[in-house]
Amino acid sequence: MAEDFDLLIRNGDVFTGGALCRCDVGVRNGVIAAIADRLDAPAARTVDAAGKLVLPGGVDSHVHIDQPSGSAAEMCDDFDSASASAAAGGTTTVISFAWQSPGESLAGIAEDYARRARKSRVDYTFHLTITDPTEKVLEDELPALVAAGDRSIKIFMTYKGVGLKDKDILRVLDAARRNRALVCVHAENHALIEYLTEKLVSAGLGAPKYFPLSKPMTAEREAVNRIIAFSEALDTPIHIFHVSGAESAAEIERAQQRGLKVTAETCPHYLTITADDLDKPGFEGAKLIFGPPARTVADQDALWNYIRRGVISVISSDHSPSRYDDVKGKKVAGEDAPFSVVPNGVPGLAARMPVLFSEGVSKGRITIAKFVDLVSAEPARRFGIFPQKGLVAVGSDADFVIWDPERKVVIRNEMMRHAGDYTPWEGFEVTGWPSATYVRGRLVCKDGAPVAEAGGGRHVPRAPYPLIEPAGRARAELRDALGA
Amino acid sequence: MAEDFDLLIRNGDVFTGGALCRCDVGVRNGVIAAIADRLDAPAARTVDAAGKLVLPGGVDSHVHIDQPSGSAAEMCDDFDSASASAAAGGTTTVISFAWQSPGESLAGIAEDYARRARKSRVDYTFHLTITDPTEKVLEDELPALVAAGDRSIKIFMTYKGVGLKDKDILRVLDAARRNRALVCVHAENHALIEYLTEKLVSAGLGAPKYFPLSKPMTAEREAVNRIIAFSEALDTPIHIFHVSGAESAAEIERAQQRGLKVTAETCPHYLTITADDLDKPGFEGAKLIFGPPARTVADQDALWNYIRRGVISVISSDHSPSRYDDVKGKKVAGEDAPFSVVPNGVPGLAARMPVLFSEGVSKGRITIAKFVDLVSAEPARRFGIFPQKGLVAVGSDADFVIWDPERKVVIRNEMMRHAGDYTPWEGFEVTGWPSATYVRGRLVCKDGAPVAEAGGGRHVPRAPYPLIEPAGRARAELRDALGA
Amino acid sequence: MAEDFDLLIRNGDVFTGGALCRCDVGVRNGVIAAIADRLDAPAARTVDAAGKLVLPGGVDSHVHIDQPSGSAAEMCDDFDSASASAAAGGTTTVISFAWQSPGESLAGIAEDYARRARKSRVDYTFHLTITDPTEKVLEDELPALVAAGDRSIKIFMTYKGVGLKDKDILRVLDAARRNRALVCVHAENHALIEYLTEKLVSAGLGAPKYFPLSKPMTAEREAVNRIIAFSEALDTPIHIFHVSGAESAAEIERAQQRGLKVTAETCPHYLTITADDLDKPGFEGAKLIFGPPARTVADQDALWNYIRRGVISVISSDHSPSRYDDVKGKKVAGEDAPFSVVPNGVPGLAARMPVLFSEGVSKGRITIAKFVDLVSAEPARRFGIFPQKGLVAVGSDADFVIWDPERKVVIRNEMMRHAGDYTPWEGFEVTGWPSATYVRGRLVCKDGAPVAEAGGGRHVPRAPYPLIEPAGRARAELRDALGA
Amino acid sequence: MAEDFDLLIRNGDVFTGGALCRCDVGVRNGVIAAIADRLDAPAARTVDAAGKLVLPGGVDSHVHIDQPSGSAAEMCDDFDSASASAAAGGTTTVISFAWQSPGESLAGIAEDYARRARKSRVDYTFHLTITDPTEKVLEDELPALVAAGDRSIKIFMTYKGVGLKDKDILRVLDAARRNRALVCVHAENHALIEYLTEKLVSAGLGAPKYFPLSKPMTAEREAVNRIIAFSEALDTPIHIFHVSGAESAAEIERAQQRGLKVTAETCPHYLTITADDLDKPGFEGAKLIFGPPARTVADQDALWNYIRRGVISVISSDHSPSRYDDVKGKKVAGEDAPFSVVPNGVPGLAARMPVLFSEGVSKGRITIAKFVDLVSAEPARRFGIFPQKGLVAVGSDADFVIWDPERKVVIRNEMMRHAGDYTPWEGFEVTGWPSATYVRGRLVCKDGAPVAEAGGGRHVPRAPYPLIEPAGRARAELRDALGA
Repeated sequence: MAEDFDLLIRNGDVFTGGALCRCDVGVRNGVIAAIADRLDAPAARTVDAAGKLVLPGGVDSHVHIDQPSGSAAEMCDDFDSASASAAAGGTTTVISFAWQSPGESLAGIAEDYARRARKSRVDYTFHLTITDPTEKVLEDELPALVAAGDRSIKIFMTYKGVGLKDKDILRVLDAARRNRALVCVHAENHALIEYLTEKLVSAGLGAPKYFPLSKPMTAEREAVNRIIAFSEALDTPIHIFHVSGAESAAEIERAQQRGLKVTAETCPHYLTITADDLDKPGFEGAKLIFGPPARTVADQDALWNYIRRGVISVISSDHSPSRYDDVKGKKVAGEDAPFSVVPNGVPGLAARMPVLFSEGVSKGRITIAKFVDLVSAEPARRFGIFPQKGLVAVGSDADFVIWDPERKVVIRNEMMRHAGDYTPWEGFEVTGWPSATYVRGRLVCKDGAPVAEAGGGRHVPRAPYPLIEPAGRARAELRDALGA
Repeated sequence: MAEDFDLLIRNGDVFTGGALCRCDVGVRNGVIAAIADRLDAPAARTVDAAGKLVLPGGVDSHVHIDQPSGSAAEMCDDFDSASASAAAGGTTTVISFAWQSPGESLAGIAEDYARRARKSRVDYTFHLTITDPTEKVLEDELPALVAAGDRSIKIFMTYKGVGLKDKDILRVLDAARRNRALVCVHAENHALIEYLTEKLVSAGLGAPKYFPLSKPMTAEREAVNRIIAFSEALDTPIHIFHVSGAESAAEIERAQQRGLKVTAETCPHYLTITADDLDKPGFEGAKLIFGPPARTVADQDALWNYIRRGVISVISSDHSPSRYDDVKGKKVAGEDAPFSVVPNGVPGLAARMPVLFSEGVSKGRITIAKFVDLVSAEPARRFGIFPQKGLVAVGSDADFVIWDPERKVVIRNEMMRHAGDYTPWEGFEVTGWPSATYVRGRLVCKDGAPVAEAGGGRHVPRAPYPLIEPAGRARAELRDALGA
Repeated sequence: MAEDFDLLIRNGDVFTGGALCRCDVGVRNGVIAAIADRLDAPAARTVDAAGKLVLPGGVDSHVHIDQPSGSAAEMCDDFDSASASAAAGGTTTVISFAWQSPGESLAGIAEDYARRARKSRVDYTFHLTITDPTEKVLEDELPALVAAGDRSIKIFMTYKGVGLKDKDILRVLDAARRNRALVCVHAENHALIEYLTEKLVSAGLGAPKYFPLSKPMTAEREAVNRIIAFSEALDTPIHIFHVSGAESAAEIERAQQRGLKVTAETCPHYLTITADDLDKPGFEGAKLIFGPPARTVADQDALWNYIRRGVISVISSDHSPSRYDDVKGKKVAGEDAPFSVVPNGVPGLAARMPVLFSEGVSKGRITIAKFVDLVSAEPARRFGIFPQKGLVAVGSDADFVIWDPERKVVIRNEMMRHAGDYTPWEGFEVTGWPSATYVRGRLVCKDGAPVAEAGGGRHVPRAPYPLIEPAGRARAELRDALGA
Repeated sequence: MAEDFDLLIRNGDVFTGGALCRCDVGVRNGVIAAIADRLDAPAARTVDAAGKLVLPGGVDSHVHIDQPSGSAAEMCDDFDSASASAAAGGTTTVISFAWQSPGESLAGIAEDYARRARKSRVDYTFHLTITDPTEKVLEDELPALVAAGDRSIKIFMTYKGVGLKDKDILRVLDAARRNRALVCVHAENHALIEYLTEKLVSAGLGAPKYFPLSKPMTAEREAVNRIIAFSEALDTPIHIFHVSGAESAAEIERAQQRGLKVTAETCPHYLTITADDLDKPGFEGAKLIFGPPARTVADQDALWNYIRRGVISVISSDHSPSRYDDVKGKKVAGEDAPFSVVPNGVPGLAARMPVLFSEGVSKGRITIAKFVDLVSAEPARRFGIFPQKGLVAVGSDADFVIWDPERKVVIRNEMMRHAGDYTPWEGFEVTGWPSATYVRGRLVCKDGAPVAEAGGGRHVPRAPYPLIEPAGRARAELRDALGA
């Protein structure tokens, strides 16, 4: 073994490969070089982690950052503030969106985002959000972008100007299959939501508490079912974003039972907020407007069950920061404005891991191993960056969060370190909190405060998903017709 | 009891209310006046039905007749030939389509069809096919038409120029709910079919045997699931047309398990023809092109199970007659034409009851009581004309088919008495055959030959479906917003 | 038509074959001779049923009468009082039990019951309750008894000295298959109930409210699943008695989905009483001790759904009358006695039809057609006496109940006309009540009061269930080994 | 880091915590002391693993060794031969059975087995097989044995003299819950199997190919369902042994969906042998008699699906070695002997990991990570010895198998190193084979040949399963009655 480490973390309970283990971890050149019962070699920096957990840094696979005005909603976080927030919550890699607005070149957009992301303190990679799947985009631009490592595509089934029609969804799925890019889907039925929204608002039922009625479970379940059918017909793997309740999860389980390549995530807000919470005085409920909306306590219980059994395998934040006073709330919309003009989404980058640890591990719903899988290992695996990310093991990137499992914290917005002016968990008490966050051996956050300057994060190219035999649906002729 | 009957049917095994019963039936003024162990009163006409079954005349709730060139496919039967075919097969009431083509007035169309139908030998009523649901159609025209007794709407989810978009489907469902009209649905995903068709045809896979690949079970299952979701969200009863296989039926059963008001039909061709049959020499397989397409033997077994358990409760013919030599086959399309230019649909009015009796009752798959329910009582019930139609009981219309349960017949197209030049069951042997058919006491077919002149059939106004409590999904607020 | 009727019922709304029809019904020699719009022939007795429904008399397929002390519980009704109660509630045929106690000859028992039943005012037939399936019973006695028309066997999976072990259940099922006798099953897991009962009682939790804990849904679901597995393995049709809640019904539906010959009943008490009702002051809750026990409101909702969809197709009373003051209640057991010494069962012969009509039809949960099916036609069909019983049609027995659908009645025990001293529906208000009851044209009850003397009922021999193809499980070799 | 290692494994692809990682592993005192990109410290022994996988040694949680003649079947392996076989196949820990025969003291038996196991070359721990659950066994003996670390109980639901009645199963489950011991279950319905066996054999259908008919899927599914119901009622975790096909696995998934603490294993023979294989000439099929029996290809496909989705989480061998010539085959039974006298079971200790690796990993059905989970990590976790066993990580026992993933081997019985005279995989070709096996740093097998003398293995005490909240079924009162 070489004599020197750049960083030595000693005496922690290190989560390495499925279990906690009391040992030392040595880092060299940003990579984990040694794990041993005792490492005595000299190190540039030595940290004592006694009494703490040493976990792989979080991988947040669904994060909206610095989306320009052309997109569905302007996001108030740029990569500086967003990555500060990530680091504050123990997350060391984010998968953000290179967001094509209609008419734009996807290649140009990707280049633009690569430039914006230079300010990031944590590592990053991109989903390619396609809202205008022209022939040029799918045939000329997509292959090179995927080959360069941004191997996932995001599509919407709803939202005006953003949601794709069935025909275009099929074209995107087909292109994705040919390029081995994973398709991530916001699945809600657009027409039904639009119809109900119009009816509710025109009946004067525009208060935030009516928002969940405008996006019922049925609308989500339908779209989940439909995208699964398309995935099945074209034999293209998909990943369902933000499953909000039992009925959608049941569709996903049915797909998995049929052997389909369908995975899914949910988010901490679906596990902690219910539709009833939107009925707060004034326009306060508007802070909890996100789509799909919060559901019921029964849905939360069901989601925990689906999480435990692996049907839902990833927890992301769906970080969607907007300023309540500006965009989301009264300045723009006025107190009497209906829910339909309120931008969807809540911030969650910093809160994701503490809220899940507390509600999951501290409350006895899941093990620490499951926690690490949900927030780090499995998103890394599903998106092709495991074991570089998502694992504390020799050869992996030295991304750590030093975690204090006993610390009790009452969440306040300023702890979140994002640019938004609220958090949906204001006043929420958690047990378990990050003490320090390292990206490739570099300390980026300590005791809640960003340490490094903006920048320093790197783009992480991703590997394609493994090729598995077709589920056996499509006959040979159909596969021939569809192409390789 | 009055002294005289217009018609006396003696000594038959009469199916009256759930069982066969050896008795006499007396008819007066087109209505059943008496059923007794022995009726000795004088009668204008006496028929000996010894050794035969006396069943309620068939009600075929899905029949395409005299659709003009503006519609998806020109149908070669007018009401003269179609009603001759109905009578030849034991059917005494047909529900045909008043078919609106885009741009047309629904009221005008309904009037037009009422005129065309005067040639019918059997009784009839109409589904209102809506392809262009303008505000005028839904708000101004529909209420009066429904109130006049044509209490069902037909919509398509596929076919260019005919299939409705989700948004319009929701508008139609909402209008249907307000008018208590039942919505019948052709459920297949348009975009997926179009996509696969284009791929197959452009890959040179246009022979009839590739047709089922272009309309896979997945496309049907998806659309069935989606229309059920819409039905659930808007609390509107629906009836699914021509379920072709297990996966769609499973979705329907799930809906029924949730308490939704969803019913379904299948057709004899789905129980007797498989996808493999389309691989006949030359362009012969084109005769078996209908949509959704024939599936597998396993699907047929599953359909029988769903039929026995009542998940599928109606058997219709989906009679769609076209001339093979002209429209469907080689004269128009040429032998090398791809399946995509071949009109969908097969004739089945005359074959429906014999094929189902033979495959069902004679082969021991279903009881006679179930047979009567599927072809007569249940369609009458579901479409609001029971017990006027679909029942042999005092007070009901004297619609009978005298049925010889032992007679073996090899089906030939000329027996079908329609205007088309082929039947998909050419050469198919059945056990059980109609001997005579009566509409309101009037003999319309005897030993396979039409007896009456064209005309004589009447329009049957229908009652609304019973109001049942909402399934409990929609909260009060949503119901308020949607209106009564 | 012959000139004379023995009985003429005029102007009623007659339920004949699936629908209500305003007509006259003429009876000759105990059989329905004519149904007509107007019957003017002279009749020995003419009844005006204007404004009333004329329904087929009820068939109650699960009734305990005059069971001797050797049986599990002494029943306080003999055939005189029980048949008075039946008639008071509109029931004209009962299927009671010829109950073999261990060591007894089944043939002797059957003879004994035939003698006891001579006092019956309504028609009757017997299930053969087998508690000691010796070789002699199964091979020597059973075939003749079944051939004589008592074509069903009752077995218990629980109750000390009565419940059969798996091995004997299989022997009975096998013998039943060979004789084409239907096996009816009381399905609860004996060991689990015994275990929980002992634990509860020894922990001092013996009050009636703990009774449902001693017989949890799990115990019933398990036994239902097990008897279905046996039925499947030996290809023997079965009928599950008194399904109490959702989980058992779900097992039955799964069996039907697999194509198995499994049917089921529930009883009015499962639709109207919940476990919480057993927590009444003093020992009053003991009146509601029946097994399986009352469950939850959610179970009741589920049962209605299963009823509507036909998974549960029969409603019986499970009439089990005991005198609260003597056997069930304080005289024998004392107020402090634990639930385990209280005889199970409630009386229900007279209440069955009014309670179901009121909760079902009057409250809009089921149609009149479904009501008739549940209480009369379907039990007649399933037990081989249809259409002789269960149908108003020419040739059927003239068993009627004249029903006043609007009459509101508050149930009191004296109206029940049984020998017991309580009814579980004391004070329960119903809408819909029988006005008169006829057995084979003979008036047996009018305005709630028995009319005829004891006796007059007849034994009704039953037909075997129809032979259907094996579900396909058992391979030919196994069938060979098992015998025909 | 200390200067010296006892063993240094260099340059291997080490599976450490969810991924393969090219690194060195240093062992000190039988424990893994360091994992690093390069370990240069001096070591007593250095092994070059370049081009090989370094996996955690296998944990085989279902192995019959040295069972005496009092047990159901005499096993021909003692701990010497069995542990040689384990080591030959890459397995470093076995969970064998301390088998109580009726009338015996469980404590005495455990002591006896501890003595017998001293000959083991690999580590071991015991399931306590209870066939006679007297009060003394459950209350006096069990607590101390469980506390000493043998924290699992094995029960049978079938086999004469071994299978427990429901009542005793409940008593064992209850005792297990109070002691936090996991109950492992052989689940098949005894009565049904006995009944069918008797019928088949007495009909002359005794050839091995009839054996699967005597133990149908239905018998297994029923028992799985029943033990799950008992587990649910008493809130006791269980583990289902040797799931043979789809129907049982479906029951287990339903239990997991309800949140129950039910896990399951299957074995390599269920994934590679079908019922048809028992129809070999002569009495050769008898070699494949094991219970539950081999099923169908469709069952195998289903099992792979259940494995991939985690419903079945463990693969054991159910090693049950008997000598074909003596016990199982013709010497004892004769060629005409019926299947019912042939001892059940096949040997599998050595074949388990190669067969699963080849059929799973090499054929692309599962990943290496899944393979390690199934054969090592998950059995260790479920039985309370993780991460001591089942993991390559610092602090874990230095149990390794050096695996050559490319090596092709045709299996011959002599490679199996057990005492039996046949293997069911004779002539079966696999890709992937163990090169060397280490137990706590000690080489026990190299290139297929045992290295060490008999002995050297240690007993591994196990931790209790984690306490999770009750599934919520049992009300508080019931839990009170059942005790802690």
